[in-house]
Amino acid sequence: MQLIPLIRVFRVFRGLIAEFRMNERFRVHYRVAAEACDIERRAGALAIEQSVETPLGAIRDQRVMREVLGQVASIEPEGPGNYRVTLALALETTGYESGQLLNMLFGNSSLQPEVELLDLDLPPAALARLRGPTLGLAGLRRIAGASGRPLTACALKPLGSTVEYLAELAGTLAAAGIDILKDDHGLADQTSAPFARRVPAVQRAVDQANRATGGHTLYAPSLTGGPSRLLEQVRISRDWGVELAMLAPMISGLGTLQELTAAGLPILAHPAMAGTPRIASTLLLGKLFRLAGADAVIFPNYGGRFSYTPETCRAIAQAASEPWGNLAAAAPVPAGGMHPDRVEELVRFYGPDLVLLIGGALLESPDIGRVARSFVARVHSLGEVPTP
Amino acid sequence: MQLIPLIRVFRVFRGLIAEFRMNERFRVHYRVAAEACDIERRAGALAIEQSVETPLGAIRDQRVMREVLGQVASIEPEGPGNYRVTLALALETTGYESGQLLNMLFGNSSLQPEVELLDLDLPPAALARLRGPTLGLAGLRRIAGASGRPLTACALKPLGSTVEYLAELAGTLAAAGIDILKDDHGLADQTSAPFARRVPAVQRAVDQANRATGGHTLYAPSLTGGPSRLLEQVRISRDWGVELAMLAPMISGLGTLQELTAAGLPILAHPAMAGTPRIASTLLLGKLFRLAGADAVIFPNYGGRFSYTPETCRAIAQAASEPWGNLAAAAPVPAGGMHPDRVEELVRFYGPDLVLLIGGALLESPDIGRVARSFVARVHSLGEVPTP
Repeated sequence: MQLIPLIRVFRVFRGLIAEFRMNERFRVHYRVAAEACDIERRAGALAIEQSVETPLGAIRDQRVMREVLGQVASIEPEGPGNYRVTLALALETTGYESGQLLNMLFGNSSLQPEVELLDLDLPPAALARLRGPTLGLAGLRRIAGASGRPLTACALKPLGSTVEYLAELAGTLAAAGIDILKDDHGLADQTSAPFARRVPAVQRAVDQANRATGGHTLYAPSLTGGPSRLLEQVRISRDWGVELAMLAPMISGLGTLQELTAAGLPILAHPAMAGTPRIASTLLLGKLFRLAGADAVIFPNYGGRFSYTPETCRAIAQAASEPWGNLAAAAPVPAGGMHPDRVEELVRFYGPDLVLLIGGALLESPDIGRVARSFVARVHSLGEVPTP
Repeated sequence: MQLIPLIRVFRVFRGLIAEFRMNERFRVHYRVAAEACDIERRAGALAIEQSVETPLGAIRDQRVMREVLGQVASIEPEGPGNYRVTLALALETTGYESGQLLNMLFGNSSLQPEVELLDLDLPPAALARLRGPTLGLAGLRRIAGASGRPLTACALKPLGSTVEYLAELAGTLAAAGIDILKDDHGLADQTSAPFARRVPAVQRAVDQANRATGGHTLYAPSLTGGPSRLLEQVRISRDWGVELAMLAPMISGLGTLQELTAAGLPILAHPAMAGTPRIASTLLLGKLFRLAGADAVIFPNYGGRFSYTPETCRAIAQAASEPWGNLAAAAPVPAGGMHPDRVEELVRFYGPDLVLLIGGALLESPDIGRVARSFVARVHSLGEVPTP
């Protein structure tokens, strides 16, 4: 008789433990192409692939079975032959390291054409540990003195130019009041403008222009190469007072992005090599780059050289900047064949919380300083723009 | 009158210079979906995108126009609505750094769904500078004492196991004579088996077994994380006598692969996140991983958990190991749901120049030592296998 309350207490306790453990998992959403008769097996295989990656018979530790093995949380039909499969994966498998997170989300499944990675949901505790941007949009605005208005940006191009040319160009653009100057994403550590000569020269030109105008243009050199080389580039950048850097996380690693931003170097993330058609671009460019710490996220804008739809672009911008746990908003940076004539259109479309990156269209003018000043004036004249 | 010979000399000289410059370019092959009336424009735009990435009007330096701007070398129809476009890109833009090479091959175009990256041809001088594997298949065989036969390999699994379990497993497998033991690709730096505790314990267990058997099993820990963390893992590995490591170049960067192998740490490359459908897998897993220095390349085998065809698998293995300039052959490592029963089939199919990686099928046995010894004996009994 007296056993019954004890069993109840035990059940409540077990429920609480289970509740706590659920919190130690995170949800990942996939689209899986499969036959109706096979989807349960296929989803189970996905849960194994993205966690223990071994036949269950090889698991001897009951803790691994209970707490580490991926679980199928739900399977929902989604159009003919397709299912939305949601897994509950153990947070501990990520080690809270962004490269490893990507590995656990899609490492091996990226090799399985029937699987697409759509989205993830992280519990607040995981968001707090992964941290996201340190500066974010608000911090970039604060440094640039750009409250309430979009930031302006331009690229230093073309690849192959001399250090002297790039420094002079940077000086002209900084004098015109552009908020952010980034290296072209093709500029790495080539003989035409080696990093160790380019970065000091460009930063000096920007500093000089800042002193003359009283403004605060930021220069973002492009960091590349293996770990030692990249850390040496970070050292050079810091030595010369660089306050922002650019990185292509899909070339240099999401883990690199996370480590650099956690160490206090704000990062403008570039989407090179991020065009994998089986990861939703909203997730990769919007959520994962932000989660790993990107303070600003460049993505291909609609109506330029890339075929992203307006809806996709808006969704990326939202994912990068909308409220998400304790994460700061990253600045959305639509780019790729933009023109100053589109300033008002883009601000109407995205709202004022963005960086307007215009490269070639400024640089091809015979008077770069004049068109840059006019671009800056056009953006400043928008004043405080209401969020749409 | 006397001018004519001078003009001739000048023309010959100019021709020689042009010849020399052609050698400073490399060919990259793409498949581009376009209308017949548009393919010339589209190919030209691709040449710009993958080099200077700017309107031509923004190029003021004639050297950049001549030597850096990408050129369309040829356009060939390839099925309805598709063209094989070959670009001649300037080698100097790569800086001979593998991450940047990938950026110049496909960085921005990866965001354009109408473009696929198929192949590249590098002149001998570029191959010499990029270097490829240091040990390669031959070096791994030499260390393992495995002349003329395939190497055997197994993975330490599952993720979530304790350090003690993994070390004991490693000892068992090393005692059985497996040539290469690699961390499961999910093992990173998690609390269940942190890198700094796991790697010394596993290497010690392997060393002990090696002393007992007189064999030479290699342990390949998985390197992960941002640059500082990864370099710290390299330091720990070296301190404990690790002779081989595993890296997923599409998570940690091709540049990281290049830097580590150039610094003398042999690398087993893992294909996690390498499943981008718009880069030919032969190019990415076979050629680019090898070029960046991978000593062995894991790829999804046919007839396992992955849907790669036998033809694709053979092409990847060939690209990784066939004669290519001065580059050492990387060891092909077909994997993913393999079973010891397939040893003879795989060796007939690929020839003896490969690593037979069998994970779960050994680990799920109630007597891992026995099945591992039997797997090893089966491979050793093949003797010297003729190349097919």
